Amino acid sequence: NSKKGPQNNKGSEHGKGKSGKFTLKTPKGTRDYGPVEMAVRRQVFDIIYNVFHMHGAVEIETPVFELKEVLTGKYGEDAKLIYDLEDQGGEILSLRYDLTVPFARYVAMNKISNIKRYHVARVYRRDNPAMTRGRYREFYQCDFDIAGQYDAMIPDAECVQLVHQVLLKLNLGDFIIKVNHRKILDGVFGACGVPVEKFRPICSAVDKLDKSPWEDVRKEMVDEKGLDGNVADVIGEYVKLSGKEELLEKLKNDARLKDSTDAQAGLSDLTLLYQYCKSLSCDNHLVFDMGLARGLDYYTGVIYEAVLMAGQTAKEGPVGSVAGGGRYDGLVGMFDPKKKTVPCVGVSFGIERLFAIHEQKQRADNDKLRSTQTEVFVAAACKGMIHERLKILGLLHEAGIKAESSYKNNPKILNQLQYSEDNAIPLVVLIGESEVQEGIVKLRDTATRAEVAIKREELVTVVKQRLANK
Amino acid sequence: NSKKGPQNNKGSEHGKGKSGKFTLKTPKGTRDYGPVEMAVRRQVFDIIYNVFHMHGAVEIETPVFELKEVLTGKYGEDAKLIYDLEDQGGEILSLRYDLTVPFARYVAMNKISNIKRYHVARVYRRDNPAMTRGRYREFYQCDFDIAGQYDAMIPDAECVQLVHQVLLKLNLGDFIIKVNHRKILDGVFGACGVPVEKFRPICSAVDKLDKSPWEDVRKEMVDEKGLDGNVADVIGEYVKLSGKEELLEKLKNDARLKDSTDAQAGLSDLTLLYQYCKSLSCDNHLVFDMGLARGLDYYTGVIYEAVLMAGQTAKEGPVGSVAGGGRYDGLVGMFDPKKKTVPCVGVSFGIERLFAIHEQKQRADNDKLRSTQTEVFVAAACKGMIHERLKILGLLHEAGIKAESSYKNNPKILNQLQYSEDNAIPLVVLIGESEVQEGIVKLRDTATRAEVAIKREELVTVVKQRLANK
Repeated sequence: NSKKGPQNNKGSEHGKGKSGKFTLKTPKGTRDYGPVEMAVRRQVFDIIYNVFHMHGAVEIETPVFELKEVLTGKYGEDAKLIYDLEDQGGEILSLRYDLTVPFARYVAMNKISNIKRYHVARVYRRDNPAMTRGRYREFYQCDFDIAGQYDAMIPDAECVQLVHQVLLKLNLGDFIIKVNHRKILDGVFGACGVPVEKFRPICSAVDKLDKSPWEDVRKEMVDEKGLDGNVADVIGEYVKLSGKEELLEKLKNDARLKDSTDAQAGLSDLTLLYQYCKSLSCDNHLVFDMGLARGLDYYTGVIYEAVLMAGQTAKEGPVGSVAGGGRYDGLVGMFDPKKKTVPCVGVSFGIERLFAIHEQKQRADNDKLRSTQTEVFVAAACKGMIHERLKILGLLHEAGIKAESSYKNNPKILNQLQYSEDNAIPLVVLIGESEVQEGIVKLRDTATRAEVAIKREELVTVVKQRLANK
Repeated sequence: NSKKGPQNNKGSEHGKGKSGKFTLKTPKGTRDYGPVEMAVRRQVFDIIYNVFHMHGAVEIETPVFELKEVLTGKYGEDAKLIYDLEDQGGEILSLRYDLTVPFARYVAMNKISNIKRYHVARVYRRDNPAMTRGRYREFYQCDFDIAGQYDAMIPDAECVQLVHQVLLKLNLGDFIIKVNHRKILDGVFGACGVPVEKFRPICSAVDKLDKSPWEDVRKEMVDEKGLDGNVADVIGEYVKLSGKEELLEKLKNDARLKDSTDAQAGLSDLTLLYQYCKSLSCDNHLVFDMGLARGLDYYTGVIYEAVLMAGQTAKEGPVGSVAGGGRYDGLVGMFDPKKKTVPCVGVSFGIERLFAIHEQKQRADNDKLRSTQTEVFVAAACKGMIHERLKILGLLHEAGIKAESSYKNNPKILNQLQYSEDNAIPLVVLIGESEVQEGIVKLRDTATRAEVAIKREELVTVVKQRLANK
């Protein structure tokens, strides 16, 4: 079988002809995942699922679409990117934009007071796709969240620990986990003289610091958002700061922040977070970065973002964030008729980016990425062996051994051996008329091409031994 | 943590109030999957995936929506059930209705000449949902298909073998795999005097035989589809027949079918299928059922359907089909500009029904269905132990042991032990001030409540031993 991956679909290859002929493509901003991409995806998911299970998380799944009003008023100006379904009579529906809002809807609807859940699924954004840079309109999110009224920073520290564990296990090189706190940002804004109604817009501007230089961010603050230039300059002093616990201590005594209740609350939260992370042995990649703001409006406390250091060459630019999240204590309350809320903290992995990096790494390590798990290929050395091959297949499957054979009545021997080599199938069982008569089979090692004759009744045992030693 | 499952959402519980208030529900015909449902789902998927891998299948994924024209002309009168997306400027899109048409589009678009793939994903049908009977508008399909030009019946027999293996491994009791052939049906229709243009409508009528008595089906043929009553009566003789190979032999010599090229081709295909299934040791549940027709128009050869026998009481009625499929040699060609086709055969598992039956069985076997995999709960016997608990968590996680602890600074000991029992967590590590001072921990077996003191540095080894023996 030649298992070709999907072609890159750039939308223009198969345009609609003049004759109004059929357009053979996937929708704009979407792609098929071929066998190799799926194999990579499964490896990454298995690692992440294992960490989620390590933390006792349960899994949930919600519908791909929600009532449109569930999504309304949650995403600010990004709401224009939501996909709506056609009104075909009945309810007005939209495709989910993320997994956080459906989670909050789930918690409120089922009156759940506490849950630690993960949810891995695709979300939909009618954004301008930049598919060459791995940005699609349909993409996976991989979320872990803890909902419940608990003591300060314990669940927050678990989220940091979880990101730490996932990135270590994926083994993608060095990384940092940036951490900040919305109350520190608000405290800084307040102490610098930003009017309260401008806190969120100015916060959005700060969020762009990881992609744009300070000059551009300052320009947005002053020109677009009407902030006083001097105030912007003072903010600039703070958001450039980054460090560890000593920076927290320094800021606690900062002249401007000393009297800010918000800033002091945020600073002592982060101090506690550091202590817990030390006990959990996950503090060594933690960096307090005052320029971290996170885009979404709904965060209310700790925010964090993990960044890979590898691949950050001057040419390619930074790999960017591979995970991010924070505390959002108000979102569930937006769905409760009595505004009763459930505090939440969570993290979302940028899983498409992790797939791409993992695949790159795999290809560098070993150019043969297998998309199947087949252990044995059953081959015939001569014609008329189809029933004998099927009997051996049945025997191997019965024993739990992954085995394939050709779909042809009389396949050529060279093609069968070539197929086994091309697909990295470790063992080949070879039969011919004489083998069938004598009740034996030949077992061939694909890598060394060495063959041995064994009794048919010993086949399963020998194959299992060989596979165990691979 | 109280991990409540989702409430059944019947659409009327949280109606839109007079004040136009927020509607807290999932869209009509959809549901959330809670932790227990997801745990059951994973068990079933793992079993099925294992069988797919046994056969060397690769996995693919396609977008949740397709260009509307990809779906057009594939589903006959069911096309009215397709969900369309709103025209927000750009392409006209629809949610996928099944996984077969996207697969054919994928094969044609990537000019693949052969592939054996599986695809597990949700599909969307604006049907009248009967949620109490497990019928939803959003539901999983689990498809395995073989595309490629191969020798007769070898891939078809593999599909039968795969269904056989999945149902054996799921261990849901006795089952039969009904098999028939579109050419036999066409041969019968032709020999009985059905006009060619009525072959497909009459075939659709026969398809209803598993739910309706022959009288109703005959009525549909005669009254709705304008078939001569005498012709219908002769068809009735044939579609009531079922048996094994001896029926195939009998029909080969049937006076009416003797001269039907179609019928004879279908009968010799099924004879060969029986022989291959014998070699694969999967013929013992195979039943040749002439009343099996399958709804979809695109089938061209062998068709099959698996039915569970268990639970078929007079009161509950039959469980019905849990898997079905067949050969469709023309579908890929519908997407190729030059009509070049790739023959296909495949099977789709009725996975939602399998979830439901598996869950029922699990509950009957053992009333405690776990939704987490946690192995150890780290508990404190006194106040002020939070950092000590986190250190032990870090230690256990480092060793790959799944461990949780409370999010409270000073949780009550009884609550911690109760949580461990409620969630069937097998082991509890208990620490108090004296344990910390002496460098020991207490290890408690949740089931027996027996406690032993062990040295802290031996904790990981002992826990691993205990878990291995569970």
